[in-house]
Formats: sequence, C-alpha cells, structure tokens
Amino acid sequence: MSVNRSAVTSVDVPRGLAGVVVTDTEIGDVRGLEGFYHYRQYSAVELAQTRGFEDVWHLLVHGELPDGDRGAAFAAETAALRRLPDEVSAALPVIAAAGGRSGPLAGLRTALSLLGAAKGLRPVYDIETDRRRADTVAVAAAVPTMLTALYRLGRGLDPVPPREDLSYAANYLYMLTGSEPEPRQARAVEQYLISTIDHGFNASTFTARVVASTGADVAACLVGAVGALSGPLHGGAPSRALDTLDAIGTVDRIDSWIRERVVAGDRIMGFGHPVYRTEDPRSRMLRGIAQEFGGPLVDFAVEVERRVEAILAELKPGRELHTNVEFYAGVVMELCGLPREMFTPTFAAARVVGWSANILEQAQDSKIIRPAARYVGPGAPVKVPEAA
Amino acid sequence: MSVNRSAVTSVDVPRGLAGVVVTDTEIGDVRGLEGFYHYRQYSAVELAQTRGFEDVWHLLVHGELPDGDRGAAFAAETAALRRLPDEVSAALPVIAAAGGRSGPLAGLRTALSLLGAAKGLRPVYDIETDRRRADTVAVAAAVPTMLTALYRLGRGLDPVPPREDLSYAANYLYMLTGSEPEPRQARAVEQYLISTIDHGFNASTFTARVVASTGADVAACLVGAVGALSGPLHGGAPSRALDTLDAIGTVDRIDSWIRERVVAGDRIMGFGHPVYRTEDPRSRMLRGIAQEFGGPLVDFAVEVERRVEAILAELKPGRELHTNVEFYAGVVMELCGLPREMFTPTFAAARVVGWSANILEQAQDSKIIRPAARYVGPGAPVKVPEAA
Repeated sequence: MSVNRSAVTSVDVPRGLAGVVVTDTEIGDVRGLEGFYHYRQYSAVELAQTRGFEDVWHLLVHGELPDGDRGAAFAAETAALRRLPDEVSAALPVIAAAGGRSGPLAGLRTALSLLGAAKGLRPVYDIETDRRRADTVAVAAAVPTMLTALYRLGRGLDPVPPREDLSYAANYLYMLTGSEPEPRQARAVEQYLISTIDHGFNASTFTARVVASTGADVAACLVGAVGALSGPLHGGAPSRALDTLDAIGTVDRIDSWIRERVVAGDRIMGFGHPVYRTEDPRSRMLRGIAQEFGGPLVDFAVEVERRVEAILAELKPGRELHTNVEFYAGVVMELCGLPREMFTPTFAAARVVGWSANILEQAQDSKIIRPAARYVGPGAPVKVPEAA
Repeated sequence: MSVNRSAVTSVDVPRGLAGVVVTDTEIGDVRGLEGFYHYRQYSAVELAQTRGFEDVWHLLVHGELPDGDRGAAFAAETAALRRLPDEVSAALPVIAAAGGRSGPLAGLRTALSLLGAAKGLRPVYDIETDRRRADTVAVAAAVPTMLTALYRLGRGLDPVPPREDLSYAANYLYMLTGSEPEPRQARAVEQYLISTIDHGFNASTFTARVVASTGADVAACLVGAVGALSGPLHGGAPSRALDTLDAIGTVDRIDSWIRERVVAGDRIMGFGHPVYRTEDPRSRMLRGIAQEFGGPLVDFAVEVERRVEAILAELKPGRELHTNVEFYAGVVMELCGLPREMFTPTFAAARVVGWSANILEQAQDSKIIRPAARYVGPGAPVKVPEAA
C-alpha cells in the first residue's frame, strides 16, 4: 500500500524504473557495451557451446556447474518430472481449445497454474530452500510437456508422452513432432535454449520476483512471469524476423525493401537492441549454428543482414544497428522444424529456468517489493453525491 | 533486460522500493497520518456507506460515479457477465480438485487464466480503451462465480448458477450458500467489498501494472495479481484475527493471553498497520457494522480490542497500535456466514476491481516497467570447466 506523500523518497525515478537497481543478484548480467552476457561467472555463449541444457539449469538453480555424476543425476531427476499428473493431462484439451483464441502462452499460463495446484505447492516463505528449489524444478521440467501437448491438441493430434532417455531439448522436439529429432537439430535447439535462459533483468523476471517477494508459491510466480512474457513489448515474436525475410522474398528485392522502410522510419524486425551497442552475442552464435546447417534460407538471411547493415551505415551513420537475437533464432528454429507459433513458447521453455533462479534468489530476502504511486487526481474528499 | 552498470541511475533506492514513486495515479490514495483513504476524489468509507458495489466499480473503471440510469445499466451489464462459458464450467471440477491442495486462490488463478483465454482476450496494447475496459469488466464479473463454484465443488456440492436479479454482493452470498441472503448480510458484505476495492499501491496492484506494462492481456495481468495476493506477506489471512479470538476464548483470559504475547514480542494478529498511525478507517467502519449485528462474538471482539489497546498503551507507550482491517473484517464475514477459508478469496472478489482500474491506467502508458539489478557475484568470465 502507498505511504504518505511526506514519507515518499524524493528520488527522481526514471519512467518505467529504467536503470533503477532494485536488487543485487548473483545470477548473471548483461554488459551491453562489451557485447557480453553471463550466467553466474560463466559466459552464457560459452556455456551454450560446451554444455548441455541440464548442466546450465543446475548452474542456475544450484549455483554451480555439476560434475559428471551430479549432472547425470540432475538430468535424470528432471527427466522423471516431465510426465504430467493425470488431472492436468485430463484438463489439457479444454485448455487447448480455449488457449487457441488468446495464443499459446495463455494456454501455458493456465496449465502451469493448474500443475502448481495439483502438486500442492506451498508459499515459498513457508518452506525450506531445498523444497523451493525442488518446486521450481518440478514445474519447469513439465513446461515442454504442457507446451507440446497444447500445441498438438490444438491441431487435433494426441499429445506425445515424454521420454526420459532423451535430453530436455531432444525430448521437446520429440514431443512436438512424435519423431526423434536429428542430433544436430536437437543440439541446435539446445544451444538456443541455453542462450536464452536468462538475460539480465527484464519484465517477466521482475514480475516473478515481485510475486515471490509476497511469499507466494513458485507456480504463482511463474504464472505471473508467463503473463508478462506474453506482452508484445516483452516476449515479442521471434517469428517477426522470419516474416521480414518472407516479405522481402528474394535477393534482388532486398535493397529497395529495406531503403523504403528506413526512409519511412519503420523499425526493421530482427534488428536493433536496447542494450547491445555491439553485435548481439546470441545473434553471432546463432548465425554460426545456422551456417553449419547451410541452405537457401541461411544464405538469404546472411545476405539480408549484410545489406541491412550496409544500408543503415549509409542512411543512419553512427548508429550501431545489428541483428538481435530474434533474427537468427527464428532461422535456427525454422531449420529445426519448429512451427513459428511455437517460437515464443520455446523461449518460455528456456526462460523458465532463469525465472526459477530469480525466484529462489528473491525468496532469500524477506522484504516485499512494494513501491508507491503519487496521487495526481482531483483533491479529496469531495462529498459523495446522493444516488439519483 | 539490465543495462550497463555505468548507465544505471545512481539513486539510493530503498529495499523493496519502499516509498519509491513509480507512477502517477488518479485512482486513489491512502493518507496514513490522517486515517483517510479515497477512491478518486471520494472518501472510500463514505462510498461504502452510501453507494452500492456496482456504482463504485463504475467509479473505478469509468472514472466517475454513475447517475441512476447509467448505474442501473452498468449493474445489468455486469450481472449478465456472471455466467461462465461452458468450457470454463466444465474445467472447474478438476481445478477444484487440484486447487484444494494449494489454497483457494490457486484455483481462482487457474480458472481466471482459463476464462481469459476462453474469452479470447487480446494484448491491451493491441486494443482500444473501451475494449480494454470491457475485458476487465467481463473477467471481474465472473470472479464470484468461479470462487463460489470452486468452493462448493471442493465440498462435493454442485455450483449454484448466478442470478442476474441480485446485486454483486447478494449474488456472491447466494452462489456460496444456495440461499438468498438476508438483506443486512448482503449489505454488510457489500460494504466490506467496497471498502477493500483499492488501498493505495500494494504488491498485487504493482504486479498487475508491471504485467500490463508489457502490453499483455487483462487476464495475464489479473492472474499475476492473484498470485501476488496469495503470498502470505500480502493477502495475509483475515481469518487470523478470528483465530486469535478463538485462541483467547473467554473474557477472563484476555489479559493474561495478550500480556504473554506482548512480553514475548509476538505480533498480535489483527493489530497494527504499516501505514496508519491512527485508527484504520476500514476498521472503524466495520466495527460499526458488526455492532449493528450485535451478539456475543461482537461483544467479545470489542472487549478484546479495548483490552489490547490498554495493555499496549501500558507496555509499549507511544506506539499507536490499533485494530487493522483484518480484525473486524473477520468478525463481519463470520456474522454474514462466510466460511473462513473464503475470507481471502472474498478480498480478491473486491480487489479485482482495483486491479482493473490500475491495469486500465497503466495501459494508457506505453513504457514497459523494467528496472535493473546489480550483479554482485564472482567476476566473469571464468572459463567454463570441461564436462567431466
């Protein structure tokens, strides 16, 4: 609740709290000027290039990279949690039918909320750290199962039950298509997932932390985060960059299409980032992955990138505008057979691990996050008029 | 996402953003030193004493008190929205079964998320103001229907369909019990509901606004808010104060029970408030309502209040500790036949209107709420060790 105006801290707070430090964190950071971001003390890109998803998940929620035995045990622990409770499975058809109208994240929001209740999650302030961590793992492990089941049900297909012998990423693709993915597709998606687990503070992460600061259960925090991610200013649409490629169509149309947009002052989807002033390190990594696949889509994407950068350098000299994570993430997901409407849900399947780490860190604090607002309406009290 | 440390605003932000003004608002305010709070330009207590719930709902989301015709039209509009879509009704039994393990707000969280998807709500940034407002009304109008159905299903009872000819408050009690409530019970609950629609900035309201600032749909915002309200530091439990009365048991035990707690430094539930330094204006109003009912519970509550204040004045001189809203809210709800586990859900059935107003106000702004965090972990990058 608000406090008296006289007690309000008279700091000049920027709109949207931009740049205002609200917490200390040991989870990671983004160094926009260096084109570098990290999870704990490790480069996120290096983690994506050298480790599996489950190892990095362990790093985020346990605070350290596991050794071989511990890593295998954690992977097995998470794999065993992929299967949904029967009552959640039973509710998915109706959730899928309704979710179709509000987008796939609305379905995840409902299913995740139900899963949390079905597992009887308790307020984070009422339980010990180990139990909190176990709650985050239990819910996150089931996210791909819910997402893929909702996707298939929405198309009249039966859900594909999870397999415990596949990695998180391979099992995700398997449940989506019903076929075991090629190893290089599974690995490419795994690298994308690792690279998007966390990325500094953002609106969904902050939402998860605000909810956690009330002591609410892990599902309440994650459901709030999914809601924030569903906002167009946040989760965006990695498919938009692909839509741009589609709209351009052919190499000979690149220059005129781009020039027209830049002159009109339109934003070109897949380019530009509020933080990075260098190439986005995720973009660089994902381009490399795409180029290993090769093919006409990749060649076209690389050519569009090259031409856009050249035209922007000419028309907007001094602005550093490079591809952002959306651009090559879309290309990689397309190459791996992910349908475009699953791009943002796939993002959620990775980011849930980052949210988990943030919930656990916030739960170590006992202070509720509760800022104030300044009343600027008409002076009160005005006498209430009698009902006519 | 976070920004570079060099770009972070170097303001000294208090923990939990306490007292930090994050937005201007025309919705209302709390003046803790005066023991006064208001919705727009009107005293909230005066509104509760003179108006119906629907009129105040209109004030919150349309910005003005309606005249007679407009008020009747708005009441009819909201009454027609009480009935749930069939697919949501069909899903309630499984939600109720799961929700029983995590508390009633977990059930509301899921049902509300499903309802939003079933109604096909779209991102607030993609729709006009009128449509946003209609979305908030459509969801809020169905909250009592969902809460009471989940409560009854959890006890093996069939839900009671809503009636359009009853007021919001009377229909709520009717759906809960299956019988039309006595007018004075309906009016007492209505006054409680009005008094708790909004109360300055708080964690659930802030959550709703953070989610709204991403442009997410109204259900995403409300689901986040319900999650925050479910946290023990926020929604609390209006039933705790009644539990205190139960624990004391009889008048002759008041003094020893209270002295023991105060000397031990324990908090006495139902007393003390972070903002009010005077009597809580909600408490004063609700005591008046309780005293109109009269009876042994009310007499006992008044005596406990009198003795606690006297003992606190003696043992903790200079501290202004009075009953807070929980104390007499619990008494009033008990007198009106509301089961204790429905106290916090009933709170949610009122606060959803305050959240609605805040979502609508936030949606007028196009700036995402995205603060920063300060990395304080080990220096990065450390080379990623090879997987063992």
